[in-house]
Amino acid sequence: MDPVTYQYYRPASRITIFAHLFGLLALILMLVWLLHYREGVNLFSYYPNQIFNVHPLLMFLGMIFLSGQALMAYKTVRADRKVQKAAHLLLHLAAICLGFVGIHAAFKYHDRRNLRHMYSFHSWIGIAIICLYILQWLVGLCMYMLPYTRKETRAMNLPWHISGGRAIFYMTIVAALTGLMQKITLMQLQLFSGESLLINFLAIFILLFGISVDISVALARYA
Amino acid sequence: MDPVTYQYYRPASRITIFAHLFGLLALILMLVWLLHYREGVNLFSYYPNQIFNVHPLLMFLGMIFLSGQALMAYKTVRADRKVQKAAHLLLHLAAICLGFVGIHAAFKYHDRRNLRHMYSFHSWIGIAIICLYILQWLVGLCMYMLPYTRKETRAMNLPWHISGGRAIFYMTIVAALTGLMQKITLMQLQLFSGESLLINFLAIFILLFGISVDISVALARYA
Repeated sequence: MDPVTYQYYRPASRITIFAHLFGLLALILMLVWLLHYREGVNLFSYYPNQIFNVHPLLMFLGMIFLSGQALMAYKTVRADRKVQKAAHLLLHLAAICLGFVGIHAAFKYHDRRNLRHMYSFHSWIGIAIICLYILQWLVGLCMYMLPYTRKETRAMNLPWHISGGRAIFYMTIVAALTGLMQKITLMQLQLFSGESLLINFLAIFILLFGISVDISVALARYA
Repeated sequence: MDPVTYQYYRPASRITIFAHLFGLLALILMLVWLLHYREGVNLFSYYPNQIFNVHPLLMFLGMIFLSGQALMAYKTVRADRKVQKAAHLLLHLAAICLGFVGIHAAFKYHDRRNLRHMYSFHSWIGIAIICLYILQWLVGLCMYMLPYTRKETRAMNLPWHISGGRAIFYMTIVAALTGLMQKITLMQLQLFSGESLLINFLAIFILLFGISVDISVALARYA
């Protein structure tokens, strides 16, 4: 089936339901981690750790959870094509906004603690991702929302839009997991302590969310 | 275009060339890291670190480099369909063999150093990946190499084979990057030291290899 014909509502498959399940489980574990094991979340706090905790929460909520919902919008939003496109666009926009606040929180934390910015692989790909994400969003806006783009141009660029978008989505998963990995190593948690297990399971659910979103979207194109 | 018709030789695109470039760069950086900055590679050595170094080298060479080559075999092997399929199958088999030796090296190192096995997220997804990889290989063998499978069954399962394979491939990228991240944090390298920069660039080239392999294979289906 031509990718161009992938444009009308398709019922959510079982894989989509799994994606929602993994996404919600990851969100719950993230909240338990930050609110129960850590000091809570507050961007305007006096305590640097509360400022830092905004970072993982918003990066996950925006760049992964909402981003995944945006990718699945063509399956989950029961409305016509135009509404689905608007949902796809707006969910991605919300993801970018949350991502910005999340990145700001990390920089603010470094400033408070007099730590250097941008020294890890995690931070490098993080910045690369937000730039690519915004670029992809702007190109998508011009290509698929503005009325003057020719239908052939749209169709010709759709494989790039889809593959590029998927690559960026997987990059956000990589960024999240390397970030959690860095955190768990820096905190020097005891092996198999409650918190260490919780973060490992959080990482696993984030990965499963990413994979099930990808498969759910990919299978829809063959359905 | 129906995925089933994606079965004849397609000329390698520019993206495929980028994939080769990133793969080779990652391989070179990996060798410079292990041979110049670290103590070298020897599975039967007296020194535990030389045993450990077999792990990153073979996991990358097998599960990522050869695995990526296997995914691109339908574009890069200039021969008819049967030869391409055989190359796809054998490259994946070679990847599994190298992966086994690589995992053995990590366990042998832990034993020598009296470290606990399997405590990190990296090790958990590593074991999950090798199991899924072998399962995918066996299902692929039965489904697409044995002569008695019906054409409709093959076609119906191809989207699963492709999406599942891609998910596993991205999981190996995640495993590699979390592994490098764990290593760089445990070694407590000075920020922006030569070795720390080298490992960060190694991680970036591994990620770029993964993304360019995915896009190269995905675009071929729309070509």
